Amino acid sequence: MKPIIEPKILKGTRDFLPDEMAKRNYVMDKMKIIFARFGYDTIETPVLSYAETILGKYGEEGDRLTYTFEDNGGRKIALPYDQTVPFARLFAANYNVLPVPFKRYQIQRVWRAEKPQKGRMREFYQCDIDIIGTANLLAEAELTRLMWQVFTELGINNIKIQINSRRLMNDVMKKLGLENICVEILRIIDKYDKIGEENVKIELAKMIPSASKIQELLDLLRPEATNDSTLAKLADYDVSEVKRLLQLCESFKVPERYLFFNPRLARGLDYYTGIIFEVIGDDINLGSLCGGGRYDDLCGLFCKEKFSGVGVSFGFERIMTVLENLGKLKDVQLNSNVLVTLFDNQSYEDALGVYNLLIDAGIRSEIYFQPDKLQKQLKYANKKRIPFVVLRGPEEIKNQTVSVKALQIGKQKTIPLTQLISYIQGYE
Amino acid sequence: MKPIIEPKILKGTRDFLPDEMAKRNYVMDKMKIIFARFGYDTIETPVLSYAETILGKYGEEGDRLTYTFEDNGGRKIALPYDQTVPFARLFAANYNVLPVPFKRYQIQRVWRAEKPQKGRMREFYQCDIDIIGTANLLAEAELTRLMWQVFTELGINNIKIQINSRRLMNDVMKKLGLENICVEILRIIDKYDKIGEENVKIELAKMIPSASKIQELLDLLRPEATNDSTLAKLADYDVSEVKRLLQLCESFKVPERYLFFNPRLARGLDYYTGIIFEVIGDDINLGSLCGGGRYDDLCGLFCKEKFSGVGVSFGFERIMTVLENLGKLKDVQLNSNVLVTLFDNQSYEDALGVYNLLIDAGIRSEIYFQPDKLQKQLKYANKKRIPFVVLRGPEEIKNQTVSVKALQIGKQKTIPLTQLISYIQGYE
Repeated sequence: MKPIIEPKILKGTRDFLPDEMAKRNYVMDKMKIIFARFGYDTIETPVLSYAETILGKYGEEGDRLTYTFEDNGGRKIALPYDQTVPFARLFAANYNVLPVPFKRYQIQRVWRAEKPQKGRMREFYQCDIDIIGTANLLAEAELTRLMWQVFTELGINNIKIQINSRRLMNDVMKKLGLENICVEILRIIDKYDKIGEENVKIELAKMIPSASKIQELLDLLRPEATNDSTLAKLADYDVSEVKRLLQLCESFKVPERYLFFNPRLARGLDYYTGIIFEVIGDDINLGSLCGGGRYDDLCGLFCKEKFSGVGVSFGFERIMTVLENLGKLKDVQLNSNVLVTLFDNQSYEDALGVYNLLIDAGIRSEIYFQPDKLQKQLKYANKKRIPFVVLRGPEEIKNQTVSVKALQIGKQKTIPLTQLISYIQGYE
Repeated sequence: MKPIIEPKILKGTRDFLPDEMAKRNYVMDKMKIIFARFGYDTIETPVLSYAETILGKYGEEGDRLTYTFEDNGGRKIALPYDQTVPFARLFAANYNVLPVPFKRYQIQRVWRAEKPQKGRMREFYQCDIDIIGTANLLAEAELTRLMWQVFTELGINNIKIQINSRRLMNDVMKKLGLENICVEILRIIDKYDKIGEENVKIELAKMIPSASKIQELLDLLRPEATNDSTLAKLADYDVSEVKRLLQLCESFKVPERYLFFNPRLARGLDYYTGIIFEVIGDDINLGSLCGGGRYDDLCGLFCKEKFSGVGVSFGFERIMTVLENLGKLKDVQLNSNVLVTLFDNQSYEDALGVYNLLIDAGIRSEIYFQPDKLQKQLKYANKKRIPFVVLRGPEEIKNQTVSVKALQIGKQKTIPLTQLISYIQGYE
């Protein structure tokens, strides 16, 4: 006898069973329908990638966390660390055949060679949406509307779409004489919500000797009670793109209460050059649900031409957690709506006749595969949460009827076979 | 200046641009809808897998073609070579929480460390559907109906679903006294369609000394003009499961002309134990479009319990090629149905007003991102094959009208703005 191999999976990866998949697909399909409504199409990029097209773009930490190996032919292979770089590569290779501005969404797995822990996986899905080839703020406005649409249609209403401008931040730094240490300061400011103002001050003091200048900076970057008052406070600085974006969002019918101009919003990545975004949930302690911004030269790694673009990435796995916690996924069904039971060894043909009626009417249904005890067949239906079970014994066959058991309400009814389809459809 | 990295991808992998993705999703969605109609749900298994759960299950050749590497923690990792083994692993790990019999479909990428050539990729999609936990032939009948449904609904009508029985073949071998070399003989018979009868005879002669026995074997396995006459010829052998399957298929309303009992059908893999399937196209020189069969102990690698199952795998990439060749995919559209153009720098708000009407009515549409020359905006619409372009100049704004250009028929019409939605919906 062969030894048995333990059916285990690598930590930080997951098996998705049907119940989980049904929920994930319900959410993904909702997102895809919204993306399609705004005219976005989808692309896919390879998993196996030349390492040189992936490495060296996320800093040392990113390279360390990228899965790499050598294939049989001695080629250095990497698995995608995110979708931004593979997208930039695809666009650089194809911009002459693609419509420009190019809008796309992309939902694929990415990999991180991390020590797995809660909320930190080695293999997970990302969901990105970008517009590349236009510098126009209308693109930012569209993504804002789209983020709002996605979260409200998913039923996550208590969100704020935080908005800031790298141009504004650069202008503030310049006018305070801090432009030389701008990147370092932003990195500290980025931690404000996590470590609090006092700790930010301590860290900033290592770079800025003047305590009053630190206070001036933090006061300037503090969001006021309304977006208008924050804009007014910063009137001497370059708030033009924030102002214009807020106007466009109003024309795009994004309710103002969802928009939060937060001058302290920094976002880690260096490649942002204009508007940056981050969506947070009011009562959700999970950090950012979506984030992104404007980048002026993402493809520069792969081609000589410059293309300005803007994009956001939805934290799909986090969104799933939030929806679970909010109870929004508890009614997601599996595919079968009806189970046709098998009465005995003689009733295959009869049961198939009933099943054909359902299938041909387009009712998602299934037939049980063997004449097990009825109890066992009902247990199967319960396990799959199939709402209707169809029974045909000798009595029903003689009378040309069918018994339908509605499992969730525990009711059973015998009806003429000719009424089966309309009976089921009446519930759908 | 940083050097530019060539935006290249590994041979045997592919970038899927929006046009290609739209076609692939059109086909996948059709298949998924059919699978759902028969009550199948979906699962997903990880890409990064412990090598021991993948290797040693496909023979030496399979192991050689499996991508393996060591991760940072010294774990041996493999990428899935197919979906059968990961599915068996998932089922072995979860059968106590899953409904049994367990029906699932699975559409994911798999990897082969091959030398890439036409039709042989390093990374491609497989589409598998299995029923595990029942030995009942009703399962085979359902998969037969399902294969027929998929191919006819996709518009591939000239297909034959070939059926054979490993039990029958074993019985034939036994009665001819060839049971000891059964596997080797099957491997030769499997090549019949490729190398022809004469070459099969030459190869068989190396194992079977008697030329008349070879002739007897080939005569027995030769399919006759009808399934009934093939069954009649083999009446002294164990054709019971083929006979019963054909009966059940009739009750399942699979038209008989699609079913081809071919006693010569062997299929390579050793793990089949009962009915085997292979779908071929009449005028399609691409080999098998779908294949599979009954296996009695697939999970035995991963658990002590025995589960009989039956499954087929659709050759998704081949099916795409066939559909392209048949011209079935030429009308597949991208997402946008309407492009709202931007007249000038003053018309953002007005254009957004028009665009909001479309979006809120659920019409898949987009707004152009900058007030480029109309010619350029139309070119963009043409490139994306967007059927309608909406124009609002000062004249239209004054008269509360909108001009709609139907690009495919080259017609332009000016209508009241209030009629825009019904006008577009009238075409959908």
